[in-house]
Amino acid sequence: MDKKLKELRIRLTEAAKLNSALALLNWDEEVNLGPKGHAFRGQANAALAAELHKRMTDPKFVILIAGLARKPGYNRLSADGQVVVRESWRDVSRLQKLPVDFVREMAALSSKAFGVWAQARQKSDFDHYLPVLSKIIQLKRREAELVGYKGHPYDALLDEFEPDLTCEQLDKLFLPLAGELTKLVAAVKDSPPLALPKSTYPLPAQTALNREIAASLGYDLQAGRIDASPHPFMVTIHPGDNRITTRYDEQDFWVSTGAAIHEVGHALYEQGLPARHFGTPLGEAVSLGIHESQSRTWENFVGRSPEFSEYLHTLLVKYFDKKTIRYTPGKLHKWLNRIQPSFIRVEADEVTYNLHIILRYEIEKLLIEGSLQPKELPGFWNQKVKQYLGLTVKDDAQGVLQDVHWAHGAIGYFPTYSLGNLYAAQLYNAALLSMPRLPAGYAHGRFKPLLGWLRTNIHQTGRRYRPAELVEKVTGQPPDSSHLLEHLKAKVNLQTG
Amino acid sequence: MDKKLKELRIRLTEAAKLNSALALLNWDEEVNLGPKGHAFRGQANAALAAELHKRMTDPKFVILIAGLARKPGYNRLSADGQVVVRESWRDVSRLQKLPVDFVREMAALSSKAFGVWAQARQKSDFDHYLPVLSKIIQLKRREAELVGYKGHPYDALLDEFEPDLTCEQLDKLFLPLAGELTKLVAAVKDSPPLALPKSTYPLPAQTALNREIAASLGYDLQAGRIDASPHPFMVTIHPGDNRITTRYDEQDFWVSTGAAIHEVGHALYEQGLPARHFGTPLGEAVSLGIHESQSRTWENFVGRSPEFSEYLHTLLVKYFDKKTIRYTPGKLHKWLNRIQPSFIRVEADEVTYNLHIILRYEIEKLLIEGSLQPKELPGFWNQKVKQYLGLTVKDDAQGVLQDVHWAHGAIGYFPTYSLGNLYAAQLYNAALLSMPRLPAGYAHGRFKPLLGWLRTNIHQTGRRYRPAELVEKVTGQPPDSSHLLEHLKAKVNLQTG
Repeated sequence: MDKKLKELRIRLTEAAKLNSALALLNWDEEVNLGPKGHAFRGQANAALAAELHKRMTDPKFVILIAGLARKPGYNRLSADGQVVVRESWRDVSRLQKLPVDFVREMAALSSKAFGVWAQARQKSDFDHYLPVLSKIIQLKRREAELVGYKGHPYDALLDEFEPDLTCEQLDKLFLPLAGELTKLVAAVKDSPPLALPKSTYPLPAQTALNREIAASLGYDLQAGRIDASPHPFMVTIHPGDNRITTRYDEQDFWVSTGAAIHEVGHALYEQGLPARHFGTPLGEAVSLGIHESQSRTWENFVGRSPEFSEYLHTLLVKYFDKKTIRYTPGKLHKWLNRIQPSFIRVEADEVTYNLHIILRYEIEKLLIEGSLQPKELPGFWNQKVKQYLGLTVKDDAQGVLQDVHWAHGAIGYFPTYSLGNLYAAQLYNAALLSMPRLPAGYAHGRFKPLLGWLRTNIHQTGRRYRPAELVEKVTGQPPDSSHLLEHLKAKVNLQTG
Repeated sequence: MDKKLKELRIRLTEAAKLNSALALLNWDEEVNLGPKGHAFRGQANAALAAELHKRMTDPKFVILIAGLARKPGYNRLSADGQVVVRESWRDVSRLQKLPVDFVREMAALSSKAFGVWAQARQKSDFDHYLPVLSKIIQLKRREAELVGYKGHPYDALLDEFEPDLTCEQLDKLFLPLAGELTKLVAAVKDSPPLALPKSTYPLPAQTALNREIAASLGYDLQAGRIDASPHPFMVTIHPGDNRITTRYDEQDFWVSTGAAIHEVGHALYEQGLPARHFGTPLGEAVSLGIHESQSRTWENFVGRSPEFSEYLHTLLVKYFDKKTIRYTPGKLHKWLNRIQPSFIRVEADEVTYNLHIILRYEIEKLLIEGSLQPKELPGFWNQKVKQYLGLTVKDDAQGVLQDVHWAHGAIGYFPTYSLGNLYAAQLYNAALLSMPRLPAGYAHGRFKPLLGWLRTNIHQTGRRYRPAELVEKVTGQPPDSSHLLEHLKAKVNLQTG
């Protein structure tokens, strides 16, 4: 058994090394690649992805894991060994259920769909997108059947991004929350728009500001980088090389700083995973939801706290001088927390963001169960936006066409964003219970105690626990939306009070 | 046959795509990677290199090529098909001759040797390097026996970098040249040192200057990038993505501009290879010598011409203003062409550079034939430097320890540098014969005619001809050192006349 487990670790680690190269190709494509390089880059990418897929579905590899996962031998493995085998078997057995032809069809379709979606959004022409989107939904429904599920077919898709998550759980978490959040939106409806005095924030100073904040939060710049890209993201190439990007707006420093703090949150998780377990589940993040909880913790619970605004204000004066920063820390704090319903998810505030997600969840679930037809999407979408946000969608570009995710075949992904908010609230509440004076330190740039707590409780465990299990282990209760709701109510009070 | 040829092309192209990822990993390591990323990066690199090696030595692949290379079937292939098969068979049959254990031993040794060499050079301690260097030479001698040769064992090593090149040819090209160059060195020995007035050249302006020059020379920045790295280099990731780097010195703009022009020369070759043949020998450079001929053409024959100094002077005034540029184009030209014997190859001028190379060639040849022992290296080296350059080496750091190449196992590589100079002189002479007014255009930033000539005669042919064959085809005579010698004599006259 030990010999087989060793072989499994070697095979996983070798695959992870090839995956490092793939991660770098992707990072480079977003950050560096010139306009004429994309055609061949796509081919290089596909060749490497194909090699990786071949290794992960190699019958010898599958038989090796299946053998290790079989009882009673499995029971005799060490605790670490069990995690490696259990989670590898989870990954591989899912892949195993998808025939090669299906995988190829999905890859070809999503590659085509991206271009169609981009055109459709540009022209705000849903009908242009409808045929390819319908085909994607048809394939994802087939995927659900191939993968299998106990309750709802959508469970099979959720499980790819958030292990063990089901509609039954999400309905309990999201639907009551939607009702409460709709009330909060109504409460802020008439509050006047909040703005800071207009200023210009030169980009080199923004870059320096972001580096100082990132380092203070605990991001190791010797093992990472901060670059610019149109869509901010975080990527781990391998241990010791974890990178984030941000984007810039000269009129609004928070565009880059807010994104940088968010991505640093993701990066701190990755930099906290045990490097000695690189390539095996013990060195990997639990789920997208838990990952998002880390970025949201730093962006919203730390970055939008009153104490952080004091720290940030001092830095703003340092990097942009007093003439530029014509507002108090208090005003800055209010501005960072303003709530204003809007059409676009990625521009949404903390309260309405979750409504954007919940409506997507409801739609995806109906599409996969077949009770909503793709052609009915725009009407249904617009009706939900009216119901939740009180807004009237004027064209599909700012409605159902705004997100790329479905074109990539990513259905079951959106819920992880709000799950991240919900986990963040619950985890942060637990951190505060054990260290009530935590926020006081933020004003002075002291973030290490929080990072230490996250390292111990979340980062170092890798995939030892499933997401809901981890949350319950750390907070003493299963995932629950009450902490997030409390947090968001306070934001509304700040604006209306 | 056609089906088999098609399969060969597919396999070659798939391997080339994985090689793109490897090239990016290497580029990134030099340009971007943080200090804590190197350990795991080395592992990712090795994993991908191993996959590539596996594919290139896969028995099915070797049998496929061997079958295609066999007559009479080979004779029935198209001309293009013959090139693909001939050159692939050349590459693969060389690899085939090296047992797996030998390759592994060499890789492990050169990986270890790099660290030992770096320490030895730092402490100027040859004895520290001697054991590992002796082992490398022992392995390279074994490699020569495994690969096989007709004349001299060193031929087997030369052939890796410069197909078909032999000691017999090199002796004819290099040894008389060494005598002539030694006389030229003696002639400039007493000329006073030439310097420009001291100025500071801010780095952002240097970057902008280099971009303008690179674009004028014909480098497509939409399919490339210019970054900074400690050692300037050029790398092709894949068609449409060809990158160069340079390094900067605020007191001397030519450190970055000269290196950029040199690397642009390499890049123009790669950007001129036919992209539709990506991955097959028809889309690859002929040899290191021909590659170097391209970089030297632009750096030395264009970049150090009097007309280029006029163009460059105008740009210097544009980017650094008149107060900074307190010298005439004529003075600039003289300064760019100054000759001054020195210890370090990479800092050498055009004349003495070739003496640095020829002495390395003589040493490598003696080491491989076994008539010089590694422990005798410092003494032999210093004696040669005295003979050729008239200089007394004070310590091994500025002598035999200065180059990393041997630590990498690259023996047979140095000669390609001077071969490049020699080819460049001969090819450039042919270009001038067909377009005598070529240099007049440089003063006005017109470089397209020369690039067009190189594209047609050198770049577009890929590996259709072997290096010496290509030179003879384009210039009407086999490689010959007379053109280089004429060129260098003119430089000496410029300084002494």
